[in-house]
Amino acid sequence: MPAMIGTWQMCFEGLQEGYAILQNGGTAGDAVQTAIMRVEDNADYNSVGFGGLPAADGRVYLDAAWMDGNTLHMGGIMSAENIRNPIRAARLLCGRETNCLLAGRGAERFAVEQGLPMRDMRTEKSLAQWREELQKANRQMDAYREHDTVCMIALDDHGSMIVGTSTSGLFMKEPGRVGDSPIIGSGFYCDARFGAAAATGLGEDIMRGCLSYEIVSLMKRGASPDEACQQALYELVKSKVSLGEDEGSMSVIAMNAQGQYGAATTLRIFPFAAAKNAQPRLYAARGGKAGHAASSAAELKNEP
Amino acid sequence: MPAMIGTWQMCFEGLQEGYAILQNGGTAGDAVQTAIMRVEDNADYNSVGFGGLPAADGRVYLDAAWMDGNTLHMGGIMSAENIRNPIRAARLLCGRETNCLLAGRGAERFAVEQGLPMRDMRTEKSLAQWREELQKANRQMDAYREHDTVCMIALDDHGSMIVGTSTSGLFMKEPGRVGDSPIIGSGFYCDARFGAAAATGLGEDIMRGCLSYEIVSLMKRGASPDEACQQALYELVKSKVSLGEDEGSMSVIAMNAQGQYGAATTLRIFPFAAAKNAQPRLYAARGGKAGHAASSAAELKNEP
Repeated sequence: MPAMIGTWQMCFEGLQEGYAILQNGGTAGDAVQTAIMRVEDNADYNSVGFGGLPAADGRVYLDAAWMDGNTLHMGGIMSAENIRNPIRAARLLCGRETNCLLAGRGAERFAVEQGLPMRDMRTEKSLAQWREELQKANRQMDAYREHDTVCMIALDDHGSMIVGTSTSGLFMKEPGRVGDSPIIGSGFYCDARFGAAAATGLGEDIMRGCLSYEIVSLMKRGASPDEACQQALYELVKSKVSLGEDEGSMSVIAMNAQGQYGAATTLRIFPFAAAKNAQPRLYAARGGKAGHAASSAAELKNEP
Repeated sequence: MPAMIGTWQMCFEGLQEGYAILQNGGTAGDAVQTAIMRVEDNADYNSVGFGGLPAADGRVYLDAAWMDGNTLHMGGIMSAENIRNPIRAARLLCGRETNCLLAGRGAERFAVEQGLPMRDMRTEKSLAQWREELQKANRQMDAYREHDTVCMIALDDHGSMIVGTSTSGLFMKEPGRVGDSPIIGSGFYCDARFGAAAATGLGEDIMRGCLSYEIVSLMKRGASPDEACQQALYELVKSKVSLGEDEGSMSVIAMNAQGQYGAATTLRIFPFAAAKNAQPRLYAARGGKAGHAASSAAELKNEP
């Protein structure tokens, strides 16, 4: 029985397409690629792919990753420009014994050599937002703004499990800044024997706890996807709070080898989409207070 | 009681200097930086810093990372050129709430802005080796060659624990290729409550198991550093072998919060240096066969 889960409301249409592929006997890989490309190509989503908000220098630097849970191979690109569909480059890199993770010009050269379409990822709208930000007298990086990564996990009827991530990263980031999305164990992890996980939020915090690896590790030791997401996120939030920091801005999704899924967040509400034995729906995980991240699979449409 | 451990024979002199700093009441941070700079500055070590063997395009791309186990903050540079001491850049990035992991030109700009010394990392000798490699008719990437990362873990009398890594990466790698060394959880991890770990070998394989995070996680759950290193490495080797692959080329070191240390390797012999309650010595971990990585702290000088 196929299953699929993705982050944020923006993933919904892509996930619907991807899940249809799975229902028609297609592969988890094709479902994830199709779903993420739909988000990358949509100029209205300003934290992923085309139309993504620029870095401080006005350029758009892309991060993406792909992991095959059946081979434990991964591929990723980091801080790369002008690759129309970063997820396609990441997928093509997955399986290489060496050079599977490429940064900057190296990633761009790979994409060109593979014949992937290139494009200027900036739009009039994203450049206008960048210009506006530059003119603010007291610019303050709002870590909570515009750093939504699209993450997709799919399990197909052939037993294949894939996770993919794609983002243009933090708005106004320093050129070259890399977040958690292309970092294995932090932004994503997938071991088809146990499950997969992926993260979105402030990458610098997510990386401190290797959140995705920790979630898969907890599922390996018997936790449900919901329990694993909550426990891993709670432990990291607890560490942050004990260091005098705030809870941070982090959300996670997970799926186990049986296709059960879960999520957790530090936000008041974290929308995600999922499907198993039924058509895809939007759900909401709800964050707790004072270091008590919590999750729920309440349907989003029931939320206030 | 201070303690320190580092990878490969090349780390020995630096570790001696670093351990002297610890014995004189200095910090783990200063010990790690001093020890790694000693390796970076030595042109004879052709896999780290100055004199590191070039990528396929004849340029030297540097990876380095730093993690503070007391704050869970990290800093890292990836695929950056001309930074004389990559470990200094990584240390300066550690603690930033955003933009703590920088790739390529962004990392170089940061180093320049911080006033760090820049230098052309190529030597006549390293360029000669590169030219020779280019002329070989049937070039074959030997994954076992020239990918020794220097990793250092130090624990000081103030309770501070630091891990650092630095490498020029795989000889003849594709430009932009990033291995495990700057990737948190894979090349390094440090949580002063439980311990620290670091890895060296083929980064593409090390990343598949998030080896360093797994080792710290095992120590958190009660394993000794030796047990944790062996178990984490064994699990990954077992996965590789079950996928029809070879055991790979991976070595790991670890230290717990009490300053006890351990190591494990898939190689026949993996030299490392360590010190606790005594002057630094060279030791050897020994690899097993057919998926049975093993370690020992037999002194290297006793080896055949």
